[in-house]
Parts: sequence; C-alpha cells; structure tokens
Amino acid sequence: MVSKDNFRQVVPYVPGEQPKENDVIKLNTNENPYPPSQGVMETLSHIDNASFRKYPDPDVSDLVSEIADYHNVNKEKVFVGVGSDDVLAMCFLTFFNSGRQVLFPDITYAFYKVWADLFKINYREVPLDEDFNIVPSDYLAENGGIVFPNPNAPTGLVMPLDRVEEIISNNPNNVVIVDEAYIDFGGESALSLVDRYSNLIVTRTFSKSRSMAGMRIGYCMGNEKLISVLNSVKFSYNSYTMSEVAIKTGVASVKDDSYFQRIVGKITETREKTKEALTDLGFTFPDSSANFIFAKHNRIDAEQLFNALKENKIFVRHFDLPRIKDYLRITIGTENEMKALLDFLKKYIENN
Amino acid sequence: MVSKDNFRQVVPYVPGEQPKENDVIKLNTNENPYPPSQGVMETLSHIDNASFRKYPDPDVSDLVSEIADYHNVNKEKVFVGVGSDDVLAMCFLTFFNSGRQVLFPDITYAFYKVWADLFKINYREVPLDEDFNIVPSDYLAENGGIVFPNPNAPTGLVMPLDRVEEIISNNPNNVVIVDEAYIDFGGESALSLVDRYSNLIVTRTFSKSRSMAGMRIGYCMGNEKLISVLNSVKFSYNSYTMSEVAIKTGVASVKDDSYFQRIVGKITETREKTKEALTDLGFTFPDSSANFIFAKHNRIDAEQLFNALKENKIFVRHFDLPRIKDYLRITIGTENEMKALLDFLKKYIENN
Repeated sequence: MVSKDNFRQVVPYVPGEQPKENDVIKLNTNENPYPPSQGVMETLSHIDNASFRKYPDPDVSDLVSEIADYHNVNKEKVFVGVGSDDVLAMCFLTFFNSGRQVLFPDITYAFYKVWADLFKINYREVPLDEDFNIVPSDYLAENGGIVFPNPNAPTGLVMPLDRVEEIISNNPNNVVIVDEAYIDFGGESALSLVDRYSNLIVTRTFSKSRSMAGMRIGYCMGNEKLISVLNSVKFSYNSYTMSEVAIKTGVASVKDDSYFQRIVGKITETREKTKEALTDLGFTFPDSSANFIFAKHNRIDAEQLFNALKENKIFVRHFDLPRIKDYLRITIGTENEMKALLDFLKKYIENN
Repeated sequence: MVSKDNFRQVVPYVPGEQPKENDVIKLNTNENPYPPSQGVMETLSHIDNASFRKYPDPDVSDLVSEIADYHNVNKEKVFVGVGSDDVLAMCFLTFFNSGRQVLFPDITYAFYKVWADLFKINYREVPLDEDFNIVPSDYLAENGGIVFPNPNAPTGLVMPLDRVEEIISNNPNNVVIVDEAYIDFGGESALSLVDRYSNLIVTRTFSKSRSMAGMRIGYCMGNEKLISVLNSVKFSYNSYTMSEVAIKTGVASVKDDSYFQRIVGKITETREKTKEALTDLGFTFPDSSANFIFAKHNRIDAEQLFNALKENKIFVRHFDLPRIKDYLRITIGTENEMKALLDFLKKYIENN
C-alpha cells in the first residue's frame, strides 16, 4: 500500500456539466452560441502531416506575434497557454511564492481557491460589498499578490478602470492579475495599463468571445520581466503546451476581427433583451457586462428552477454556496435559445 | 518593482531545436519520420463547429476508453494529458509529496530534475553503472518515490522486466513511475504488472511511435487509486487539458493498429541497419532499444561532429554534461535520411 503522505491532498474544481446529448440548450458554461470564424475551419482543412509528426514550436511564436499585433503590445509581453485556466494556474505557481496572503474576492471564480490549495499558497477571501462590488480599499493590506476577474464571475459586474488602477497602483511590490475572460462583452480593459505598471498581468481566453473553448487557448499580457519569469516556469513544466493545430487555428481566429466583433455584438444585444424579459418575469440581477446573467427570482427558489429547467433539457448553473445560493447563472445563447428559456420560465412561474 | 520573493526560481528544461526551415534533416528530438495514420488526417477533416465553440469532455472519456481497450486494462486505470511531459509533471506534483528523497538515474531524461526543482521535491540522482545500466539494488534505500525511463534516454538501453519488477516490488510504500516513452521500439513493458502492484505508474506518449508530437497526447496507467488521486490534482489545475481535436485524432490513431505496427517495424529495421553502419565508421554505442542511437566516435570529438552536421543541415542532439559529453544522440529517421547522415559522416571522418 502506498503511504498516504506521498499524495497531494486537494479538493478539485467541479466544472459545469458537458452533456453528450445534442438536443439540450446549454447555458451553463458561458460558451459562445456561435461557431468560430470560417477561417478557423478552413485552417483546419489545410493542416499538413508535418504538424502532427513534429513537435510544435515551443515558443508559439506565430500565435504570440498575432496576439501582440492585435493588441498593439510587443511580443515579449505576451504568454500563451492551454486555456486561461492553464495561464492562471501557471501565474499562481510563478508569482505567488512569498508566503504572504494572496487576496481575491469571496464571490468569484471558484478556481482561484483551488489553485491556491493545490500549490499551498496562503490566501484570504475578501468579501464583496452587499451589492456584490469589489471594494478597492479592501486590497491595500499587506499581501502576496491579488487576483480578480473583471467583469467578475459569476456576478457579471464590471469595475470601472480607475478603480482597477487603484488596486494596481497601491500594490507595486506584488503581482496583480486582472482576469479578463469576459471583458470583450463589456467594460474597459486594464490592458492600457500594462506599459505603465510592472506588476500587472491581464489574462484573456479564446473560450468565450472567440468561440474556441474546445481548442483550449488562453493568454496573458504583462511587463516583459513578468512574462519572462512565467516562461521559465512554463518551460520547467512542459515545453510544448500548445498543439500545432491550436497555434494555427488561434492565429486564424485573431485575423478575422470583423466576424469577432459581429458575434460579440449579437451576444451583447441578446443579453440586453434578456435582461428586460427576466425583469418582466420577476427576476433581479446585478447589471451584467459579461455573456451571462446572474439572476434571482423574487419568489421561486433557485435550486427548484435549476432542476425544472434541467428536466426540460435547459442547462444553467447553480452554485450551492453562501450569499449566492438564490441565484442562477444563465449564459447568453442564441436568440432562439433565450426565447425557449424565457417561454419555459414564463409558463413555469405562472404555474408555481 | 515587484519583490523577487514573489517569484518561483527555476532553471528550465531546454528542448531540442525546432528549426523552421523545411530542408533540414531533423534527427534531434526523437520524432517519428513517418506521418500518422491516414485515419488521423481524415478525422481532422470531419471535425465540426461544435468541437470548437463548446468545452471538450473534461473526462476525455472517448480517448481513455480507446486506450483502455487497446491495452486491455479497465478505464479507471488510464489517465490522459498534454503529452507525457504533462502527465509526468502531474505525477510529480501528485505523488512526490512525502519530503523523502525521490530517486532517478544520474543519466536520464533531463526533465525529472527540472520538475523536482519546480515543485520543490527533494531528490537524489543515482549513478548508472559504467556501462550505463540502471542497477536495481541501488533503489532499495528509503525514498519518496522512484522514476526512470525504460528504455532509458538518452542511452537507449532497456532493462529486462524482472529487474524493473525488482524495483517495484521492493518499494511497496512509494510510487514507482516507469516512463515508457520508447517502449514500442523495443523491450518488455511493465504494463503487465499494473494489476499486481498498487504502486506502479507506467507512462506512454503519442509523440514518438504514434507520430503525433504536434498534437500533444500522453497517458499513463496504474492502479485505480493512483489514477483517481491523479485526476483530482488534474481537476485542481485545469478541467480541460485535452482539446476536442486531440481527443478525436488520438482515438483515430489508436484504432489503426496495423499502420502503427508497420511504421514501428520500419523504424526498428532502420535502427538495426544504422547500428551496423555506425560501427563500420568507428562509432560505439549502448545497444539501443529506442528510436535513437547514443553514439560516440573512437577519434572525433562529439561537439565537433555535432557542429559539422548542423552546418550541413543535419540536426542531432549533444548534451554538454558529465559522463555523456562524448556522445551524440541520433534519432532514427527514414532510410533516406539515415543514408544522408551516414554519407556525410563517412566523408567527414575520412577527411578529419
């Protein structure tokens, strides 16, 4: 019997369900309802054999350069990984080593706590205010780094850039990670601050706005020194994290900006219509800037609604956690999907 | 300025060069010279949009099942990752936590030391004997786990299964990882021992024998308890490490066993011919069971040969390390590539 002291003890993150049936309406993992750019699919059909038998470029140069050009930063400021989860995990491992407490909100992306536990990082969860806002002055205490999403998840609330900057500028000795998984759907990016603050990391993902969750691409941008340290840790973990297919299709996605802007526009438009309809049905919610709405009904229990929806093959997300157990996180799908959701909710609420 | 105490200090692994020119003969990273199965390429052309916009199956069930069937083990004994480097890194993080010294050979895959440093794992390098053999009795001391490749890299030497078993059976309380990246090219796998020893992990890769280095697929097999702990750590790092494209093309590769056997047969045949030719040119080498030969010339310096080859666009690998600096690691390519290598060496040796 292997001694238990050999094992790392963890409580893993539980991702939203990925049902295998095709006839469900899937509004539970903040995926994009639209396909990726046509260029992505075309790129796939032109992949050649050498892309398989040879190792990919360990520096991921083509994708790094494409992203750097797109954001108008130099390429020494860009780091790419297997989804932003990989990028964030790598950042935790690389930047949170002082032993001092790392700070993040109490209601936020649940993976932060999991990574901190995995890597034995000391941390403190900082409560949001009663309206679910991040309060910058709460992040001025001594710490070993800070991480928060903007817009925050699962609330959808965005922080204005001057408040984000307040947190960054007051913590010059520690790394501040702004997780912008949802920024394309609303809010002002902290990317404009990367050249001014040497302690800032901004993370992004291809999984939401770029419709490429299945391909696993994420990235971050920051000061050259931070990116260089991050690369050293990455090269101490796995030289080749990105497949040649991910690199090439990622480049194709970034190149097609007009399609990207168009689908993001459709989703934000659908989101605003959905807000009105949910309000009419008796829901309240923080005013989301993301591709989901975090909604609470004025009468019917969230778990009951969650189960009723699921029985009707509409998947949303419910977190059985303090402060947020009355809420459902509903991803913005196509117009038709939202209509189906709203029709069901209307009927269900009338009859219950 | 960010305080240095926030950063993890590492000395990263340096992978072999991936030159971007297409006119080089690339014998430096143990890639397969043949393309993957036709089924792999066909699978790619049938990938649909949903594979991109949705998250992949976090359990990677289809690929896990296909691998389990192929090896005739149950699927709770199989774990899949982004190349065997990802799988091995995850194993180090998961299984080497006791604080006791982890043991591995002094001449071996250079990444073991890098992972140990990255995760702050205590370790001791155990010297190979003077003929580069692993000596099982050296692995009986108290330890916190053991890892070695079989066949070993960069020597290519395989250990008979009874000696591998000696190490496993004498360390029941600690995890023993047998890294079988090259086993398809020769030697007897420890896989037959997985059902008998609860402390054994056997790792494999799609990057060598399966010609899929570019797609990043590796896996390991072991006792259900070990695989379950490993999965908990993986789900604490990144829920979705494997892209949908990797999952589907991986399945296609495993399904086409006759093609797989055929290319592995061609490579081992070329290897044996190359051994004869190298001997005729004055090289000596351990008798490799892998897809490379670790060769030393009786007169000409290895670094000199390395540079001369590189100038002629033939890339091999040279490690400037104690005990092995006189050797070149030469990957087995196609018959034509080996002919070009041998022709060059013949001429060069005659003239120097």
